[in-house]
Amino acid sequence: MYNFRTDLADERSDLYKKANKLQEIEGVKASEEQFNDHIKKTKVEILDENGENALRKPKGVYVTIDINNLKIAQDQEIEDAASCLSQELKELINKHIDDKSEILVVGLGNEYVTPDALGPKVIADIDVTRHILQYMPQYLDKDTRAVSAISPGVLGTTGIETVEILKGIVQNVKPKLLIVIDALASRNIDRISKTVQLSDTGIVPGAGVGNKRNEISVNSLGTPVIAIGVPTVVDLATITDDCLDIFIGKLQEKGESNAYLNKLKEDDNYEGIKEALNPNDYNMIVTPKEIDDLIVNMSSVVARGINMSLQ
Amino acid sequence: MYNFRTDLADERSDLYKKANKLQEIEGVKASEEQFNDHIKKTKVEILDENGENALRKPKGVYVTIDINNLKIAQDQEIEDAASCLSQELKELINKHIDDKSEILVVGLGNEYVTPDALGPKVIADIDVTRHILQYMPQYLDKDTRAVSAISPGVLGTTGIETVEILKGIVQNVKPKLLIVIDALASRNIDRISKTVQLSDTGIVPGAGVGNKRNEISVNSLGTPVIAIGVPTVVDLATITDDCLDIFIGKLQEKGESNAYLNKLKEDDNYEGIKEALNPNDYNMIVTPKEIDDLIVNMSSVVARGINMSLQ
Amino acid sequence: MYNFRTDLADERSDLYKKANKLQEIEGVKASEEQFNDHIKKTKVEILDENGENALRKPKGVYVTIDINNLKIAQDQEIEDAASCLSQELKELINKHIDDKSEILVVGLGNEYVTPDALGPKVIADIDVTRHILQYMPQYLDKDTRAVSAISPGVLGTTGIETVEILKGIVQNVKPKLLIVIDALASRNIDRISKTVQLSDTGIVPGAGVGNKRNEISVNSLGTPVIAIGVPTVVDLATITDDCLDIFIGKLQEKGESNAYLNKLKEDDNYEGIKEALNPNDYNMIVTPKEIDDLIVNMSSVVARGINMSLQ
Amino acid sequence: MYNFRTDLADERSDLYKKANKLQEIEGVKASEEQFNDHIKKTKVEILDENGENALRKPKGVYVTIDINNLKIAQDQEIEDAASCLSQELKELINKHIDDKSEILVVGLGNEYVTPDALGPKVIADIDVTRHILQYMPQYLDKDTRAVSAISPGVLGTTGIETVEILKGIVQNVKPKLLIVIDALASRNIDRISKTVQLSDTGIVPGAGVGNKRNEISVNSLGTPVIAIGVPTVVDLATITDDCLDIFIGKLQEKGESNAYLNKLKEDDNYEGIKEALNPNDYNMIVTPKEIDDLIVNMSSVVARGINMSLQ
Repeated sequence: MYNFRTDLADERSDLYKKANKLQEIEGVKASEEQFNDHIKKTKVEILDENGENALRKPKGVYVTIDINNLKIAQDQEIEDAASCLSQELKELINKHIDDKSEILVVGLGNEYVTPDALGPKVIADIDVTRHILQYMPQYLDKDTRAVSAISPGVLGTTGIETVEILKGIVQNVKPKLLIVIDALASRNIDRISKTVQLSDTGIVPGAGVGNKRNEISVNSLGTPVIAIGVPTVVDLATITDDCLDIFIGKLQEKGESNAYLNKLKEDDNYEGIKEALNPNDYNMIVTPKEIDDLIVNMSSVVARGINMSLQ
Repeated sequence: MYNFRTDLADERSDLYKKANKLQEIEGVKASEEQFNDHIKKTKVEILDENGENALRKPKGVYVTIDINNLKIAQDQEIEDAASCLSQELKELINKHIDDKSEILVVGLGNEYVTPDALGPKVIADIDVTRHILQYMPQYLDKDTRAVSAISPGVLGTTGIETVEILKGIVQNVKPKLLIVIDALASRNIDRISKTVQLSDTGIVPGAGVGNKRNEISVNSLGTPVIAIGVPTVVDLATITDDCLDIFIGKLQEKGESNAYLNKLKEDDNYEGIKEALNPNDYNMIVTPKEIDDLIVNMSSVVARGINMSLQ
Repeated sequence: MYNFRTDLADERSDLYKKANKLQEIEGVKASEEQFNDHIKKTKVEILDENGENALRKPKGVYVTIDINNLKIAQDQEIEDAASCLSQELKELINKHIDDKSEILVVGLGNEYVTPDALGPKVIADIDVTRHILQYMPQYLDKDTRAVSAISPGVLGTTGIETVEILKGIVQNVKPKLLIVIDALASRNIDRISKTVQLSDTGIVPGAGVGNKRNEISVNSLGTPVIAIGVPTVVDLATITDDCLDIFIGKLQEKGESNAYLNKLKEDDNYEGIKEALNPNDYNMIVTPKEIDDLIVNMSSVVARGINMSLQ
Repeated sequence: MYNFRTDLADERSDLYKKANKLQEIEGVKASEEQFNDHIKKTKVEILDENGENALRKPKGVYVTIDINNLKIAQDQEIEDAASCLSQELKELINKHIDDKSEILVVGLGNEYVTPDALGPKVIADIDVTRHILQYMPQYLDKDTRAVSAISPGVLGTTGIETVEILKGIVQNVKPKLLIVIDALASRNIDRISKTVQLSDTGIVPGAGVGNKRNEISVNSLGTPVIAIGVPTVVDLATITDDCLDIFIGKLQEKGESNAYLNKLKEDDNYEGIKEALNPNDYNMIVTPKEIDDLIVNMSSVVARGINMSLQ
């Protein structure tokens, strides 16, 4: 089975078409739209089991927003990106609950690990209202939606599966919908901290950094879950794989040593090369040197986008 | 009723004796012990309802550990202080559960507010084992205690009462005991980030910075709660009160304007002075300029002390 | 001699007038102006030696900008405050150098001490151009001013007087003007991180936290120095002094124990009270609990204001 | 000419021998020693012009200290590594100056970029004495060496070449020797934040992250410069290069398409592959996911090692 090495539905769709030499995938509908000069939206809809099997993601809509030059974004560009995100998010929210239903925003990730700190940083900037509605309702419009926010930490520092923590909180707080923010893995270095993926199919936390955890979704929590994912790293193994694939492709074009190379590729027997480059005891990641700044700007986009869409 | 303006049982006992000109308080037993040249332990035991009414704290043992010169502490001194803390903590734990029973460590406070960040900082350094016992038990001794740790945030940023969050987690994780770390208010500037108070009577989060929240204790959670409190601030109102009290005391010693001054003091009618010095829209606190460093050193003492006592 | 305990010319002028029961101070001209609903500008001009002796600050113009509600400021308010600052700063710059002359921006303070971190934080956000003009001039308009920026650290962590460091840099970089940012002491809690003071008379670093250092000014460096000062703390001693002064004032109003109280005040013999409240081995400061957030917002105002005024 | 893509003399020596199929390099002497179970020292001595041409580094001694498991190092291991570093450093210092001569410690790098923050972090922990000797000599032994420390920032945020800043400071402070700490590039992922390289030949700042700057050495400053370099990143281009080289080597072993492959390698014409994987507008780096923690531990090793060696 094909290893996509990306959590973006958008990239999976492209990879699948390329690998299978298809123009279209049955059960998958895709479209693109320019929001403004700097911002592009891509929509990938997985319509049925066929699409699910192809892209190995659950049925649903996956909207990807790509932002140019976020690294040097000025305030106006961050505001525009937040607007774009908020439009799409509002649409997703309205599919599931009404204007006043309570929402819990969850920021996954480890704030002490730079590329994994996006979720906790966003939570620090969410405008929470639940406690004001409870204790000082006179300070808010009576139509204000109750919003709460939590950053539950990661398995490695809590010792508890994130979904176990969330189950407990959902049982007590009883929100009608969850918005969950997480770092994703991308295939393409170029998308790191420039892209936001939105979907209402839930999330598998930790996927962005190589660990599989229990699903966070309506299945596990009983509440619909909108996932906001931002690619912040590429695994080094992905890069070395791509490196060898491109190289073999190039050799094959020239008609060189075809049979032998094909066999190499099929067997995936360049394991030794990858091991030499990626020692086992560390989790090697590839990021832009400017990742600290990128995470700050992207947190701002996501937090503002969420705040705009909630009230 | 007397306003102690301190969460330390130790200080309350002293203030009560002074205010009532007593040598001893009925229902309260106190003792002192030097751990080494730099570290002193004080034990205040509240034995009955009489003691509860005097110190307005629930029955139980309150151990205070005072550490000299923590600001410039070298590694050995931090290790010594952690040892001392761990001895006392072990004793308290053994009163409630056996060696293998699961423990959840909770760090209260807001990590983005320097003097309130102690709890979250400690959590980042707790050796958690629960997930390893669950998924890779072969890497641990079979007698290892399951330990998990969480930093739930504060009402102002989550919108949810801390006790509500903890209820949910306790129901799902089912620990047999909680250790809760919090910033406290002290009466005495000299004790800021030099003192640790231990008790098994639970905690009222936020008391260190002026907000009352629901109790975190066996009553609300059904699990015994050991509280580790560290004074990190003094309210400015406490300082101005003390300032005026000392001054009036001094005037009275000289026999000056006694009747009038007594009345002033009884009426507590220097409210205007305090307001002029402590504008309402901010929460003014008094800390050492070196608070950032002190919090780092104290977090290290508390985290190591807890880690030593758990396995 | 009167101890002002504030670096704001504005506050000194008020205190001097009150202490001497004056309506005006000879040699000092003051005026006020509302920039918008939230922002007020005050100008104190020290015209001659008379004014210098009264306010104990060198001749020159001191502009103070007060910003309401900076704690919860949204982006528009920060932008407005930056605009206001930039207007005044531009005027001061134009008094000394022309549009293209090189400027060095200096951020004093210790970034590891929250209320002292303003200067280093501002430096991180200054748009520097000097190296681009040197190596890649094609990327900039040919009229771009050369701007460089440095955060030299504090005596306690460098072991070197700030002015010694700056002398060396000024000799090598040869800017035509310095803009120096520093934390100040204020008398009034209400102004902490809400106020910016601008002047072209240089600065005494460390004054904001109790240490006197060598002057940073045209006298020591040979280059004009514009100082941007922001009050971030009040000394605890200032608060206790004020507390006792207000109290004694109140007792005197009632005609109580006048002679004795006057003597107390003259002798300043409530030293013992202040010592009890402010132990010597720490530098106790009073700040709003929200100081971390305030410093972030204020850094943003100052950095944007400077950037706007330089090109 | 061979592109080493590493600043470690140790790695260059290995790469040179491998590329030229040599057992020894003329003009280069190398030796190895185990400090303890976890720590290994390697010494590469470049003796003459021959050695300089081979390794393209100036004549001098390069000591490399490799530390196992620094990621999970406990206090004792950090102390051991610091001891080992301090031994070697002391020897180097004594070659140039006597016990009491003044030293300036310089931390290069950008503290807001995680893998580049090592230098500034070390500076924060250096025990400076220069100002105490100047103002309060009675608090120190009369034989105390004067030590000062500075973190001058990076060209991108100051607009000034680091060497220009240092020239000014050296002229004014007049130290007899500089110790300069910098992040290096390594060839080998396995050495990231586990290795310290010591030499007395100065440093080229920024080399660790791809920018060449003016030399910091006795030539430019007139003062001997001991460089302490720590590899914290590997360039992504290095990884993709290595990936292709290993792969081509493997194909050649099998006797496949030899002539064509050799030509590919000689021409270095897999530029297109590298560009596809490493887009130009970012500086892509490879680090362990745990880089934040590694930098903290390594800063502690370097700061303690320096402090031990200075007094």
